[in-house]
Amino acid sequence: MSSVHSCARALARWPQRPGQLQHAWRLPSNNTFSTSPVLAGNRAIVYNTNGDPARVLSAFSFPELPPPPPNTANIRFLLAPINPADINVIEGVYPAKPEPDVSLCQAKDHPIFVGGNEGLGKVMDIGEGVVDLQKDDWVVMTKAQSGTWSSAKNVALSDVLKVPKGLSEAQAATITVNPPTAYNMLHDFAQLAEGDWIVQNGANGAVGQAVIQIAAAKGYKTINFIRDRDDVELLKQHLELLGATHVVTYDELSDKSLRAKVKTWTGGKDIRLGLNCVSGKTTTLMARLLGNNAHLVSYGAMSKEPLSLPTSLFIFKNLACHGFWQTRWYSNKSLEQRQELLKTLAALMRDGKLRDPDHEVFTIGGTESDVSASEKICNLLARLGQGMYGKKVLLRVEETA
Amino acid sequence: MSSVHSCARALARWPQRPGQLQHAWRLPSNNTFSTSPVLAGNRAIVYNTNGDPARVLSAFSFPELPPPPPNTANIRFLLAPINPADINVIEGVYPAKPEPDVSLCQAKDHPIFVGGNEGLGKVMDIGEGVVDLQKDDWVVMTKAQSGTWSSAKNVALSDVLKVPKGLSEAQAATITVNPPTAYNMLHDFAQLAEGDWIVQNGANGAVGQAVIQIAAAKGYKTINFIRDRDDVELLKQHLELLGATHVVTYDELSDKSLRAKVKTWTGGKDIRLGLNCVSGKTTTLMARLLGNNAHLVSYGAMSKEPLSLPTSLFIFKNLACHGFWQTRWYSNKSLEQRQELLKTLAALMRDGKLRDPDHEVFTIGGTESDVSASEKICNLLARLGQGMYGKKVLLRVEETA
Repeated sequence: MSSVHSCARALARWPQRPGQLQHAWRLPSNNTFSTSPVLAGNRAIVYNTNGDPARVLSAFSFPELPPPPPNTANIRFLLAPINPADINVIEGVYPAKPEPDVSLCQAKDHPIFVGGNEGLGKVMDIGEGVVDLQKDDWVVMTKAQSGTWSSAKNVALSDVLKVPKGLSEAQAATITVNPPTAYNMLHDFAQLAEGDWIVQNGANGAVGQAVIQIAAAKGYKTINFIRDRDDVELLKQHLELLGATHVVTYDELSDKSLRAKVKTWTGGKDIRLGLNCVSGKTTTLMARLLGNNAHLVSYGAMSKEPLSLPTSLFIFKNLACHGFWQTRWYSNKSLEQRQELLKTLAALMRDGKLRDPDHEVFTIGGTESDVSASEKICNLLARLGQGMYGKKVLLRVEETA
Repeated sequence: MSSVHSCARALARWPQRPGQLQHAWRLPSNNTFSTSPVLAGNRAIVYNTNGDPARVLSAFSFPELPPPPPNTANIRFLLAPINPADINVIEGVYPAKPEPDVSLCQAKDHPIFVGGNEGLGKVMDIGEGVVDLQKDDWVVMTKAQSGTWSSAKNVALSDVLKVPKGLSEAQAATITVNPPTAYNMLHDFAQLAEGDWIVQNGANGAVGQAVIQIAAAKGYKTINFIRDRDDVELLKQHLELLGATHVVTYDELSDKSLRAKVKTWTGGKDIRLGLNCVSGKTTTLMARLLGNNAHLVSYGAMSKEPLSLPTSLFIFKNLACHGFWQTRWYSNKSLEQRQELLKTLAALMRDGKLRDPDHEVFTIGGTESDVSASEKICNLLARLGQGMYGKKVLLRVEETA
């Protein structure tokens, strides 16, 4: 079955689900496509217009992949996380835009996008010229927005990295975004040595927890800021078990006495690295804890407030502010550098120094219909949008029966 | 006459001037000092407590300097600017603090500070071991807060640089703060090539005007932001004559249409350097004009507002924010590096590429009494505090008769 065929099925099926897609998806006036029954094969979670993921996402069946062309591999996705940035991509508010998946629909004026940026795949078949990969190897994607919410995909060799042995599926499926963000932020800006101190906010996030663990493995001390909450003592204990030196709420950060406390903790040593995924007022306070010649690295802005800092910190304390985006890191680095980083992170995981993120697996079963699968994924995204999940959700899209 | 003697005169004289110094300056209870007539010799503009310069400054006579100790020189100051930072130092709100001048008063609980950070001196006498300087050479200070508002001073060789020939007194007296700030900001952050664009605010300030000229000499294009004012067209013309490519008011910057205009000017080329001495809202707008991988360098905050930027500029456009402080530059660099920079700037001045700042010379005459000189300097600082001077004021403190 041709991919145009799959596309035709989508064109025919989508308008039947009320409130979803029918406005954005219009049949070409000279429609030559025809509907066809759902075939056994694969499935992807797709959208054709930006918007609320709970409204624009659909499950979309497509046939078995053809044999892989030279220098590519066919992979089966085992697990793919739903990261916050994935939501922003679907909403259309993220700077990295996916390319339409032309293997699913070739009609240029009807693009189909597959959700998901990160994921773990297993090699099913390799094309001519592929020597570094073999069947059953695990690979992860380093090309941004490659569409991982799918059961299978044909991928270029240059867009994947082979995963070292010894990791769990969950570790491997989440190794290309958050752990490298944490690792690179700890290494690319300030030259830290064992015993040095860092501060970070949003410390309970996936990146924050990776920062705590990698810093602990390197012998760096961390002061970690979190939101106050009902179970704050439990969370503090959890982060301390991961290796956090101190865990402090933003309320405690707002209290002037914290400054003296921090001085006691550090013995007056300058803190030379701050990591920020919050911005707004509490980040201004956190920046004031930094010493001379410090770097403040931002990778998020959960407060949706700007990063606002007294100019004097820049002029007289030589503060430097940067941003970090793992997507840019990948696009600036060679395949060898990417592989090297993956090995380093995998070693930390195997040594028990970097744990699985708290997660649950959400499976789209192979026997479900596309309509039922679509409802399921939209319900999930609605719950995620309301912040109903504390844990990282890892999507498993099974082959269709 | 000993320096303790001078100190005693100050202790005795200051309380006689109402509203000035008497609160901060208290005679030691076991006062063994005595008053003495004013002797021929030197004079400095001094203070002993932080506060409004118009209230805390005094003229203070002191005798001829003793012969210079080894590796020092006695210099006569020819001109010393009154820079905005000098006011902040006297107010006590500047991070760089002067040391008390123990040659004027050795009593530790009664420090005397000489105002002024920058200045041009002429070598009058050299101590043993001095080979690089001779009588009548011109020198400038690279030690911060060395107290230049004076007729004479003994200086360590390591704290001064010899001025290349061919400059005017005004050029040499103002060569160590603003021109190097401009030069280093243009060179230390972004790697610019001829035809590249920069943006800056406060473009009519002394640094801003130096930026325009040095950039023009290097073939960089500048977009310069200034406050709207009655004579704005005159100011625009003046800056364009100096080499500004475009001059734009903050009001025009607030208009959304500017973005398209800038794109037309630059031909869509990324602007990779922004220089900021204002902060606040207009700087946020200016930062949005920067392209990918740009550097925003702050050296002032005239708005007294923080520097507030969308976090997305850091993450997705790889903006980096820094501060620049010429004082730190000097303290981090070798004597050779300082000399090299001075030569470069002097060459630009001699070639007519970097003009005298608009200035007027304010002379404290040698025949005036300290009381009259004190009144004069306080009146001047009061007028400066009210923003009554458009021009840079260069102080000339004459030897006393």
